[in-house]
Amino acid sequence: MTRPAGRNRRRVSDANSALLVDLYELTMLQAYWRERMFDEAVFSLFVRRLPEQRNYLLACGLQDALHYLEHLHFGAAALEFLRGRGEFSADFLGWLKDFRFTGDVFAVPEGTPFFAPEPILEVVAPLPEAQIAETFLLNQINFQTVLASKASRVVAAAGPGRNVIDFGMRRTFGADAAVKSARAFFIAGVSATSNVLAGALYGVPISGTMAHSYIQAHDDELAALRRFVELYPDAILLVDTYDTLQGVRKVTQLARELGGRFRVRGIRLDSGNLIQLAFEARNILDAARLENVSIFASSSLDEYEIEKLVKAGAPIDGFGVGTKMAVSEDAPSLDMVYKLTAYAGVGRLKTSPGKETWPGRKQVFRQAEASRYTRDILARHDEPLPGTPLLERVMAGGKRLPAGRKPLEAGRVRAKAELARFPAPLLSLSPARPRYVVEISAALERHRQEMVGQRPED
Amino acid sequence: MTRPAGRNRRRVSDANSALLVDLYELTMLQAYWRERMFDEAVFSLFVRRLPEQRNYLLACGLQDALHYLEHLHFGAAALEFLRGRGEFSADFLGWLKDFRFTGDVFAVPEGTPFFAPEPILEVVAPLPEAQIAETFLLNQINFQTVLASKASRVVAAAGPGRNVIDFGMRRTFGADAAVKSARAFFIAGVSATSNVLAGALYGVPISGTMAHSYIQAHDDELAALRRFVELYPDAILLVDTYDTLQGVRKVTQLARELGGRFRVRGIRLDSGNLIQLAFEARNILDAARLENVSIFASSSLDEYEIEKLVKAGAPIDGFGVGTKMAVSEDAPSLDMVYKLTAYAGVGRLKTSPGKETWPGRKQVFRQAEASRYTRDILARHDEPLPGTPLLERVMAGGKRLPAGRKPLEAGRVRAKAELARFPAPLLSLSPARPRYVVEISAALERHRQEMVGQRPED
Repeated sequence: MTRPAGRNRRRVSDANSALLVDLYELTMLQAYWRERMFDEAVFSLFVRRLPEQRNYLLACGLQDALHYLEHLHFGAAALEFLRGRGEFSADFLGWLKDFRFTGDVFAVPEGTPFFAPEPILEVVAPLPEAQIAETFLLNQINFQTVLASKASRVVAAAGPGRNVIDFGMRRTFGADAAVKSARAFFIAGVSATSNVLAGALYGVPISGTMAHSYIQAHDDELAALRRFVELYPDAILLVDTYDTLQGVRKVTQLARELGGRFRVRGIRLDSGNLIQLAFEARNILDAARLENVSIFASSSLDEYEIEKLVKAGAPIDGFGVGTKMAVSEDAPSLDMVYKLTAYAGVGRLKTSPGKETWPGRKQVFRQAEASRYTRDILARHDEPLPGTPLLERVMAGGKRLPAGRKPLEAGRVRAKAELARFPAPLLSLSPARPRYVVEISAALERHRQEMVGQRPED
Repeated sequence: MTRPAGRNRRRVSDANSALLVDLYELTMLQAYWRERMFDEAVFSLFVRRLPEQRNYLLACGLQDALHYLEHLHFGAAALEFLRGRGEFSADFLGWLKDFRFTGDVFAVPEGTPFFAPEPILEVVAPLPEAQIAETFLLNQINFQTVLASKASRVVAAAGPGRNVIDFGMRRTFGADAAVKSARAFFIAGVSATSNVLAGALYGVPISGTMAHSYIQAHDDELAALRRFVELYPDAILLVDTYDTLQGVRKVTQLARELGGRFRVRGIRLDSGNLIQLAFEARNILDAARLENVSIFASSSLDEYEIEKLVKAGAPIDGFGVGTKMAVSEDAPSLDMVYKLTAYAGVGRLKTSPGKETWPGRKQVFRQAEASRYTRDILARHDEPLPGTPLLERVMAGGKRLPAGRKPLEAGRVRAKAELARFPAPLLSLSPARPRYVVEISAALERHRQEMVGQRPED
């Protein structure tokens, strides 16, 4: 079971991501292939129920979903591995060698607020192609949506004028999550990330301060701060390594030493009672005429803690948020599913208790009064209903369309603009009552009833 | 901010993982470089406090940590990106070009149960090399330990004789987490994963059943089951797409049709009241003389649900566990830190409230009476104390030692053997009272007191 050492030998890449799949997708694929079930299928990706702690979700992950579909193929090593399993026939593996995704994809743009049970993505493709995409699409869209939705609340709690910086990389679930979380947070309105690679890969602004280890490696706290500022005159200085307020006084001493050359941007509080320390630190700074030195806080923050700090009027100018945002601690998963809703032109549905589906291709119409959103209608895709349709065609015949290639900023702009149009209670941290209304159109409900009536063998 | 399209353009790889780092590590690195602070540093990686819902943690992630350290380098693209930032000097970037990790690493083997505040890894290296590793080591070891620790509880709840299969890939936070979670779960005692790539990369056994979409794509449930079994005679059949007990009866009908050729291994229940359905399904199967067909359950399971099912005596032979294990829903993060504990031969510590550290290199001695573990002693690394030392040298001079190259099974075997030696309450799902004892050795406590006394500027 040990494998030869080598570079990247255990990394996920386009060369092996076709195997990033639940085994049953492949066994079903072989069954579809054997039964010649190549007719067109429709799968809907949606969330069955929102977590209690979420009034809305923010769609994220479409870019990676489309990249995957565009590059999906089984390379030689993947085919070799499957051959070794013994459960796949040589003919099937030969067919798999030329397997590509050739279907259409409809999706809501990244940064779109959405609700249950609205589809945020629908795949229309020959059954095997649509089936195999299930695992990867859920894997990427679920976690990116989880994180964008969490960060949106953190940004709302900080309010306008106070930046949120992502410090979460050390707590994200691995490397893929590290870079994509920073991207998802940026879409949700987070200002910057500490993650350098997210800056390099996606252009997310990057930002950093300093760690306790830097202070500790020096024999003297003041000397450490002095050295750091020589190199980075506009740094944000960490002041709580030994005693926070003593640390703040050392910053004022540095200001006296440097006079007009003092350009330190801010200090960072990372422990203790942040409200009290922020007030006291502000007083010390102001007394030293350092009104321009801002106060930045971190230390186990989330939207609830930030709301407390803001409500208490603590003089904090920005927040570094790590762990609790990086894992979406209060709601780390969504009940997101990818369900067959039509095959060979016939609507399909599942009737397991609590796991019902809506048949066929669908559209979501978002309706507004006086520019405020009032409700969504989940409808059949071709109904002529009032409101803005949310799903757009982003891929045709396996190729991305311009709508599937939006720059990162488009998602961020969309999230901000769209959220501003919802009723205010939706944006508060507590559960909005009543919840935002999602109606089922009469035609979709009728279609479902017909399907239930025609259910096999009832 | 849009980037040219291309294969793997936005993937993490050994070529860019040096940038998988918090920006402040790099700014501090430049400061250390400028100040010629190249003396030996010791960093300890440990968990400050266990989550309420965890009686122990299971160490995981060492293999990826060591792989990273062995391959750490700044390639041309990484250096170019940093140059473009404008905050790094050409001289520093020239130095970074030849930067490699040349230090020693001491760590507990994967699969070792551990407690707070025991170090599970210590890095001894020139300060910049030890500093920069912080982000990646925490990123990998934190999440893999979170997941192994969660899975260990799930396996314990299932008890001996009932397999747990990992179905979590669609809920893991991305692709890196998908494969490494399957690996971490296997170490913790999970029997197999649905994740094909985890099988290909790590040799984790893979396993699968079938999805509702397969049943739904056929016009007739029985026909779907019949077709599937033609191809996979020993399949596990999903029976709850429409009506669970009707589904079970169709399996018995299939058995009548196939007679001696019927080899179906089991059925899967994925919704509804699992206790009641398991009893009823068992009755139906047994009445049809299908005592060999086992019952497999899934549907939002975790250790608490599984314990309920087992305590109720539900005739369930195995569990498919997804979401709640994949995100460690009740404890998705750890208070895991990587702290400077010595520099240039002098112990260092931090005294921020609630964030204290222990100075210098350390060792953990695990003591037993009559082969049962009774307590751990956290000590200075060179104390001659009784008990089994947990930390071993796994890397020297930047090269992995045999102790750092154990096969995956070694971690699984270790976890099982070690856990069996702890007091039983530790392995129950509820908080163990009293908690397992971790004592601080007198010498370590003295060393700490000396350090506090010598703290700069007190």
